[in-house]
Amino acid sequence: MSNYRYRTISFLSDYGLVDEFVGVCHGVMLRIAPEVTVIDVCHGIRPQNIGEGANVLAQAVPYLPVGVHLAIVDPGVGAGRLPIAVQAADGSWLVGPDNGLLVPAAARLGGATSARKLENPELRAPNPSRTFQGRDIFAPAAAHLALGVAPEELGTELAVESLVSLRVAMPRLHDGHFHAAVTHVDRFGNLSVNVDAVAAAEAGMTAGSLLAVGIEGHRLTIPFGETFSSVPPAEPVVTEDSHGQLAVCVNLGSAADHFGASLGSKVLIGPSGSSGGSSGGF
Amino acid sequence: MSNYRYRTISFLSDYGLVDEFVGVCHGVMLRIAPEVTVIDVCHGIRPQNIGEGANVLAQAVPYLPVGVHLAIVDPGVGAGRLPIAVQAADGSWLVGPDNGLLVPAAARLGGATSARKLENPELRAPNPSRTFQGRDIFAPAAAHLALGVAPEELGTELAVESLVSLRVAMPRLHDGHFHAAVTHVDRFGNLSVNVDAVAAAEAGMTAGSLLAVGIEGHRLTIPFGETFSSVPPAEPVVTEDSHGQLAVCVNLGSAADHFGASLGSKVLIGPSGSSGGSSGGF
Amino acid sequence: MSNYRYRTISFLSDYGLVDEFVGVCHGVMLRIAPEVTVIDVCHGIRPQNIGEGANVLAQAVPYLPVGVHLAIVDPGVGAGRLPIAVQAADGSWLVGPDNGLLVPAAARLGGATSARKLENPELRAPNPSRTFQGRDIFAPAAAHLALGVAPEELGTELAVESLVSLRVAMPRLHDGHFHAAVTHVDRFGNLSVNVDAVAAAEAGMTAGSLLAVGIEGHRLTIPFGETFSSVPPAEPVVTEDSHGQLAVCVNLGSAADHFGASLGSKVLIGPSGSSGGSSGGF
Repeated sequence: MSNYRYRTISFLSDYGLVDEFVGVCHGVMLRIAPEVTVIDVCHGIRPQNIGEGANVLAQAVPYLPVGVHLAIVDPGVGAGRLPIAVQAADGSWLVGPDNGLLVPAAARLGGATSARKLENPELRAPNPSRTFQGRDIFAPAAAHLALGVAPEELGTELAVESLVSLRVAMPRLHDGHFHAAVTHVDRFGNLSVNVDAVAAAEAGMTAGSLLAVGIEGHRLTIPFGETFSSVPPAEPVVTEDSHGQLAVCVNLGSAADHFGASLGSKVLIGPSGSSGGSSGGF
Repeated sequence: MSNYRYRTISFLSDYGLVDEFVGVCHGVMLRIAPEVTVIDVCHGIRPQNIGEGANVLAQAVPYLPVGVHLAIVDPGVGAGRLPIAVQAADGSWLVGPDNGLLVPAAARLGGATSARKLENPELRAPNPSRTFQGRDIFAPAAAHLALGVAPEELGTELAVESLVSLRVAMPRLHDGHFHAAVTHVDRFGNLSVNVDAVAAAEAGMTAGSLLAVGIEGHRLTIPFGETFSSVPPAEPVVTEDSHGQLAVCVNLGSAADHFGASLGSKVLIGPSGSSGGSSGGF
Repeated sequence: MSNYRYRTISFLSDYGLVDEFVGVCHGVMLRIAPEVTVIDVCHGIRPQNIGEGANVLAQAVPYLPVGVHLAIVDPGVGAGRLPIAVQAADGSWLVGPDNGLLVPAAARLGGATSARKLENPELRAPNPSRTFQGRDIFAPAAAHLALGVAPEELGTELAVESLVSLRVAMPRLHDGHFHAAVTHVDRFGNLSVNVDAVAAAEAGMTAGSLLAVGIEGHRLTIPFGETFSSVPPAEPVVTEDSHGQLAVCVNLGSAADHFGASLGSKVLIGPSGSSGGSSGGF
């Protein structure tokens, strides 16, 4: 390994694990860089949901080894969007489409310091497919970066300010309550909400207090607990999730099922007893 | 690798593969122990089903390299249950919550020989999350054990007799028949039953014989075959599963679908023609 | 690694990832060959669908490192079919059941050059299970081949002409149109059809032209685009898939849902305006 620049490539996509897309990309990377370790971060991003992919990637990268982060959620594959590699301040490289997927992760790693268009025909498959550029363009670039290719060999430099960014939905604070939304639903049915725990504390919501919550037609008072089992089984609880956001949960159950909620569901949340609850419209 | 104590960490959980939980734990482990190989044993344990997790882990460990076995099915995360590491007689370490998940696997590996509470703040993330201790407590401990940390650095020693154990449902033998239950349903719809083949043989059920089986309202005679294709396609067959238990199967089909059965379904099973069939109540 | 014959074992099966079957096979292989890298190509083959497994394996192998390819889709497990290893002209070994699964992949790698029956009791588990031979016969053989076992130690040589082959459904060209079928449905709902792009071009279907397509009761004219986004969102498009076959797709949507189509659905496809469309019967 001594002559590799990076030992690991981490890999996130919306490819799922039912097809062979992920395995074939592993094969392509290991043919080029046989000693690299590939970490599958997550391939369960909802198909073509760039926002979800960007969010999950940004939350994951601080926990991954410094290295190459390959990320593919690419509804515009083969059309106008650019294939790119972005270097972050911690020394990592992010490889994927220039559609907003990579920018929040680069920010989490200290910011993007440089970017290149992937256009060197020697660092991709001959005659790359128009519909599976993960295999033919992105995986080869990630492997060559792990091996230690000079960045200028990838292609033209791009201004980091010119990279495509997503508009991120921010919660609206009105009358003491956040008008927020579900930004992630995990396997357990926990509903992460785009309100961070620091902002929540400033608005008077801290662990141990009672919260007024409106979601999918339900209006109720829910304890803000330290963890799921701060309430009895099958009871709802708000917790701080593992990324510092509020999450609506049900102890030993699924909040998604309990409330009929899903990605994008609107959530009104504030301290119990404040007036915000009466002004909500959902 | 020469200075690592163990080359592999195997990893079982109820995290599923749709979210990034598993990938983030891989990242945490490889940041600490970059040369370790992580084996994903299974992440499809039903959410928070400790019994299923304990059963699958115990069946898997004899086939895994001696090393660190990280297992997380943890409905009490962040509350009173202890995070622990348990050493087994074969030299392996089991890391996870003290809720019964680890004990049957330790028994399968020759028995637990020592146990430690995981409480050293230097061997976990700063400010560990209350809801994702796999990332912040268990994965770091597993990686440090692979590297070779001295067990006494993990935390206080615990008596192995004090570890939490699950009550295991045993089948009841009455009038020549076993009153048993489905303990596992696999991807193919095969229904493993908590009757082992040795006990079955003692009760007169051997490959080649006919069995009387009652399950989910069905009462029928099923051959005990050597393998699935001992019967014609779409026909039911009882086989010995790969862990030495009886399993109700359908050749080229799903017994779960065929009988409308699932985890926990009651099964009455005995030699055909004996009287037990008439006394069953389901 | 210097004394291993192959550095990687790639692994395809219909085991799914909910159970521990895949993880246990990883464990078995790493106990025998601790330094090997195992690539999970795909474990989402539909249960016992040998044809789908053979097709996916053959499409994947050119992108995998030369090494051992372990493939298990095995409805006849434990019965008459032989466990085999087949060497291909590129130096790779294919390990699995002799039921047609391996032959198309061997052909893609230059053809089968030799084959062996797996029958050496020292290279498998003692008392192998009749229902989980992946664990007890195939995974051990793959690991021993990676280590460098002499092929003659595996067992009796078999004539490569004697290996079981599947009959492959070929499309029928009639009156300028292909009477074809859906041979793969991917996670995105893209429908691959058994018409390759070269044959399509010879029949007058090239990117940029309009095609007449009949599928599941729908009859319509669809553009043959360079990629998905050659048409507006939610519109159908025919593309060349990443293996050179035609695929019926919907931009930013699922063609499977749009047309109610699935694996095996019949597809009539030809140039728009030709007469074939009027003679189709479905």
